[in-house]
Amino acid sequence: MIIDCHGHFTTAPPQVPEFRKRQLAALASSGSAAGVVPPVVTDEEIRAAISGHQLRRMRERGVDLTIFSPKAVAMDHHQGDEAANVAWARFNNELVHRVCRLFPEHFAGACQLPQTPGVAPGARVFEELERCVKEYGFVAANVNPDPTGGRWADPPLWDRKWWYPLYEKLVELDVPAMIHVSGSCNPHFDAVATHYINGDTTAFVQFMKSDIFRDFPTLKFIIPHGGGAVPFHWGRYRGLAQDMGLPPLEEKVLRNVYFDTCVYHQAGIDLLLRVVPAGNILFASETFGAVQGIDPRTQHHFDDTRRYVEASADASAADKARIFAENALGVYPRLRAHPRCGG
Amino acid sequence: MIIDCHGHFTTAPPQVPEFRKRQLAALASSGSAAGVVPPVVTDEEIRAAISGHQLRRMRERGVDLTIFSPKAVAMDHHQGDEAANVAWARFNNELVHRVCRLFPEHFAGACQLPQTPGVAPGARVFEELERCVKEYGFVAANVNPDPTGGRWADPPLWDRKWWYPLYEKLVELDVPAMIHVSGSCNPHFDAVATHYINGDTTAFVQFMKSDIFRDFPTLKFIIPHGGGAVPFHWGRYRGLAQDMGLPPLEEKVLRNVYFDTCVYHQAGIDLLLRVVPAGNILFASETFGAVQGIDPRTQHHFDDTRRYVEASADASAADKARIFAENALGVYPRLRAHPRCGG
Repeated sequence: MIIDCHGHFTTAPPQVPEFRKRQLAALASSGSAAGVVPPVVTDEEIRAAISGHQLRRMRERGVDLTIFSPKAVAMDHHQGDEAANVAWARFNNELVHRVCRLFPEHFAGACQLPQTPGVAPGARVFEELERCVKEYGFVAANVNPDPTGGRWADPPLWDRKWWYPLYEKLVELDVPAMIHVSGSCNPHFDAVATHYINGDTTAFVQFMKSDIFRDFPTLKFIIPHGGGAVPFHWGRYRGLAQDMGLPPLEEKVLRNVYFDTCVYHQAGIDLLLRVVPAGNILFASETFGAVQGIDPRTQHHFDDTRRYVEASADASAADKARIFAENALGVYPRLRAHPRCGG
Repeated sequence: MIIDCHGHFTTAPPQVPEFRKRQLAALASSGSAAGVVPPVVTDEEIRAAISGHQLRRMRERGVDLTIFSPKAVAMDHHQGDEAANVAWARFNNELVHRVCRLFPEHFAGACQLPQTPGVAPGARVFEELERCVKEYGFVAANVNPDPTGGRWADPPLWDRKWWYPLYEKLVELDVPAMIHVSGSCNPHFDAVATHYINGDTTAFVQFMKSDIFRDFPTLKFIIPHGGGAVPFHWGRYRGLAQDMGLPPLEEKVLRNVYFDTCVYHQAGIDLLLRVVPAGNILFASETFGAVQGIDPRTQHHFDDTRRYVEASADASAADKARIFAENALGVYPRLRAHPRCGG
């Protein structure tokens, strides 16, 4: 059994990104996107978008189930107002729900939240989160630690007033959150090359230095892309925690934080498996995602992370079974109800 | 022979940081720090600050020579105006020069530049750079890719109008630059835990995606802290470069960019040595720097990076000799004139 905890609907038909363009054009011209009507997407279009891409690739690679969410770089929180972002999140989450309904054996949903710059996650965010979990049966949410798109201008994750109500809601609904930034409007940061990785590292340090997990002991976060820079600098973070008088990272962060395996070469996966406890690693590939090509050195896709995990000498077979599937059932409690997981 | 390419004067006597505090207080109260007089620092104070710390540690670890620059987190570009930053840079660079003069066998200088938010590196920056290289015999400069202190609000490194005049000056003087951010005024980013590492990753991607090295084929940069997240995500960056239609990283970036070994655990150094060509790695420890404690797992300092390099099975003895010293003589041409290097 292999569960990929990190897939996005990146192959949706063209009217999907077109809808966002129309929203932004309306916002720019009239200050409101309220009149912009979402496009029709047929079941046939969804089937084609999945069968020919995500599901084909999952079958080729022996991935049984993917936790699937809207395209991350297209969440685009920084460009909309709250009303537009609510409509955009609802639209994308519904598409993911339809994917899950059309291919119930292969997908479980995770939602995009209608976060908005300058707006603390509140009623509209909770409403959409609750809708996705209760009506659609989604098992997780993506939380953008920087809805200002590379300006990092809203409060950090440890800000009680800003973020704690969202954490309460996540705990109440018993869903974990994947930390995932979206696009970048800061020319310093390429979205997938820079902003994603920096966002992961930034979130980890905020978790390390804060009391979030003292205040929410059952809250769980997945940091994608192998945890950004963190495993490579594990000694730095262990040493900094010690210098700061904090408890060891295992105690301070790793009871609540998990890294995925979206690291696209053998040496990177080996390091991840060597330094991070196997119980804190979740299999993922983010296909079709940031890197789509074939590595000329291996003749396999860069993002075919199953090969790296299987080839690694830095974890036992039992640990690999945890990474491929067992850990996910602990991190995503609602996944246990999925037909593929004995539910 | 062991050359450490990354040391900062972090143990200067208390009147040094006090001077900056007085500058900032004057700026806040009167809008100018012009009347703030730099403090006296005696040779005795400098000797004590070095003998009891940096030099003692170098001797303990068998490091022969350190490329030494002012304390990075205290460069503090984001808090001053240009005149204050010029006075602050001159003051710190002179201290480093005096360290090099008092301990000529053990130190070579690298300068802090008086960069200032909103001001393109121009006459004042070039003047200080030229003074340090020509009068003091410094061999390198630290370039802050984000003098706005975590706001990332000035132009990226590929901006021709903003940065190219500085690159011309670096090439003309035949000195490489170490990419090194300073403090952070953005609450999202802990300076040494987050901003340093993100800054390294950010600079690498800017190099990868730009034409800087086509335009300046002899310009050389050192990215510290092992290159930020880059070696851990080497497959991601190779794959992204390929997807973007760029030449391989070896050709696009590694003719001009070097990573140091400030990675504070064995697994991280092993990864670095495994994926980055030995010719692109420079020994460094950044002592006394971000992490000062002893690793309870090894009973050695986290930042005692010589041990990791020596213990690694991922580089040959010949490669390690290049990493420990030979590469530095190629990257820092002016180092060849140093008495310790046969000059």
